[in-house]
Amino acid sequence: MPAVDLIRKKRDGGALDRADIEYFIQGVTTGSLPDYQVSALLMAILLRGMSPDETAALTGAMVRSGVRMAYPEIDGIPVDKHSTGGVGDKTSLILAPLVAACGAYVPMMSGRGLGHTGGTLDKLESIPGFRTGLSLDELRIALRTVGCALIGQTWEIAPADKKLYALRDVTGTVESIPLICASIMSKKIAEGIGGLVLDVKTGAGAFMKTRDDSRRLARALVDIGNASGVRTEALITAMDAPLGRTVGNSLEVIESIEMLKGNGPADLESLSVLLAARMLIAAGLEQDEARAEQRIRTALASGAGLEKFRAIVEHQGGDPRVVDAYDRLPAAPGRHDVIAPTAGHVSAIHAELVGRDPGVGIEVLAPAGTPVDKREPVLRVHHRDGRGLDAARVLLEQALEITDDAPPPAPLVLERVA
Amino acid sequence: MPAVDLIRKKRDGGALDRADIEYFIQGVTTGSLPDYQVSALLMAILLRGMSPDETAALTGAMVRSGVRMAYPEIDGIPVDKHSTGGVGDKTSLILAPLVAACGAYVPMMSGRGLGHTGGTLDKLESIPGFRTGLSLDELRIALRTVGCALIGQTWEIAPADKKLYALRDVTGTVESIPLICASIMSKKIAEGIGGLVLDVKTGAGAFMKTRDDSRRLARALVDIGNASGVRTEALITAMDAPLGRTVGNSLEVIESIEMLKGNGPADLESLSVLLAARMLIAAGLEQDEARAEQRIRTALASGAGLEKFRAIVEHQGGDPRVVDAYDRLPAAPGRHDVIAPTAGHVSAIHAELVGRDPGVGIEVLAPAGTPVDKREPVLRVHHRDGRGLDAARVLLEQALEITDDAPPPAPLVLERVA
Repeated sequence: MPAVDLIRKKRDGGALDRADIEYFIQGVTTGSLPDYQVSALLMAILLRGMSPDETAALTGAMVRSGVRMAYPEIDGIPVDKHSTGGVGDKTSLILAPLVAACGAYVPMMSGRGLGHTGGTLDKLESIPGFRTGLSLDELRIALRTVGCALIGQTWEIAPADKKLYALRDVTGTVESIPLICASIMSKKIAEGIGGLVLDVKTGAGAFMKTRDDSRRLARALVDIGNASGVRTEALITAMDAPLGRTVGNSLEVIESIEMLKGNGPADLESLSVLLAARMLIAAGLEQDEARAEQRIRTALASGAGLEKFRAIVEHQGGDPRVVDAYDRLPAAPGRHDVIAPTAGHVSAIHAELVGRDPGVGIEVLAPAGTPVDKREPVLRVHHRDGRGLDAARVLLEQALEITDDAPPPAPLVLERVA
Repeated sequence: MPAVDLIRKKRDGGALDRADIEYFIQGVTTGSLPDYQVSALLMAILLRGMSPDETAALTGAMVRSGVRMAYPEIDGIPVDKHSTGGVGDKTSLILAPLVAACGAYVPMMSGRGLGHTGGTLDKLESIPGFRTGLSLDELRIALRTVGCALIGQTWEIAPADKKLYALRDVTGTVESIPLICASIMSKKIAEGIGGLVLDVKTGAGAFMKTRDDSRRLARALVDIGNASGVRTEALITAMDAPLGRTVGNSLEVIESIEMLKGNGPADLESLSVLLAARMLIAAGLEQDEARAEQRIRTALASGAGLEKFRAIVEHQGGDPRVVDAYDRLPAAPGRHDVIAPTAGHVSAIHAELVGRDPGVGIEVLAPAGTPVDKREPVLRVHHRDGRGLDAARVLLEQALEITDDAPPPAPLVLERVA
């Protein structure tokens, strides 16, 4: 059927069949379908939606637009984790070494920062020499020798997704659950994993603002994964305040290393241990969550996780000495403290405002729940010659809420979707 | 605002303001807005709609994308007519000379065939030598000397519409009332007319299938015209059976000439006289419909309309001898008759099936309401060596309905929207 009829079908609320979707994705991959037809179809998909069957077919076609990896040479089920993106979320840097230290294989492909959330690749590349641009052959070698690699999407993995994403970005068609699902899952499935743990963020600082929307997204992702032979589950976690105590590439690398040394803040540690435990279960290495958590905590306490982090950095060309000498990481020397306007308790640090300006680093000195005096520093901005400072100050002052009473404790992990 | 924000605004159901629309249309006209962003916005407009204010702003911006004609040298209000397209509708060929013969100025810009409706330009060009590609200067001269010209859209008239239409055609974004309105009205307003009569077709053979949709389209068109200083009204007319007795370029030219000789079929004559009378009123030459109709009938009976037709053909380089010698028009020599399968009355000749195959000409031998014997010819196909005949036969046999009783008489003009 001509492309225009396919567009009209979706425009009128119809369902695209497998042949339609295959034609669409092949046209995107080969470039035979002009961008203006692709973008009209993307807008029709955004506004008309896609059924679970259509979304699964779209994901499958996107996987087949490139290579689907497999690792017959390793003895185990490769696992990965994906987060829908949160402010201060550096768990990838912690989970990959911790889980690999427990014997799992982790071929982790990550992305760059999008909008207000920093990307794992950007964080890793603040380590001098660290190469995220490994080839698939290099990934295979890293998995065999280190058990783990942290790399970017290569051109062979879901090339249709790369092209579609570039077009979605400039045509207002990013915010579509079926398109988001197919984009995330096609890359993960093509990566060659057998187990996947998803961290679906919810709240004002997340892409999904409501619990219902987050649950729908989690459900869709989990169903696609399981239907493709990838054991998939999702945790829905709150993204109201930044995760941990830092936001910014170097600062987050340091916080991740501190976490692997056993000095992580409570929220980051509890979430990391839980996600890592679920990854061990997805890898078939444990069955019971309590035992899996125990194994992760042992890897943390023994320093095995930290050693694995060092091995990853070294294997990917980075300077492993950063683990012991944070001054080897780039730093912004300027400091500015955002102070409490009144005495009370820090009741909220709104993540969506904290993450808005990627030009500066931010340290949370007094996280939500902390009692503070009037004029006590709550947030510390790391800046370079004042660049970005004025904008960041305005946002951070708005981000901060102080109340008389301590806020009720808010759980971080809200539910599990499997 | 960046183009993507404008797309997102419409995608989310918001209203575009004048500045947004100006930016959009300027981007289309100059080519600075890439096609993929234009098509995403067109799809968002199709699915989200546009308010009357937005549609008026869009029309205005499209008019300003090119030249808006004016004719200070003529003494009168130039008028035109536009039909939303019907099978066998050749009224443009009849109205222009008839109304011009009564002293009105008619700078009529028409289009080519779209889908199942033949275009006025295609019909005119079956007259040997007839040039529809007049420049605006030639249009001005024709108006002064003949009072009338039948031409195609020039590049200076609403160039944004030309570009948008090409893109809409291949992106499934033709069927949007605001986009249709802006496309029709921008060209008519830019033509420099002061009065406009619209023939909005309704029914299975029309673009608008229901009376309500047709009324909505008519209302939107009339409001835009009046808001732009063009006295505009619409007739909603039935498009169930083909208009007149012929479908096909040469056949329709002959039928138009016959009509100007006083030998037109009743439906075509009554609609032409009414539309022509409304055009005289729009031109300010008459106030009362009965008097206007009388004036038109006089121009018909006196042969003044026929002489004006001859003058137009001659002025635009065509062979005026066609008026008296139809064999100077291209003809398809083959004939095939579609016969009545049973005796009874012809109760319907479904226009949407008759107009589907533009490769053959069709003559209606027995219009709806006619009693027929079994095997009596009802439709005659004119074909060239059988080309297109098989497909046409299947469609025409389906198009034909025979019932025992005569169908109730159906009015052609259903209502007026002013």
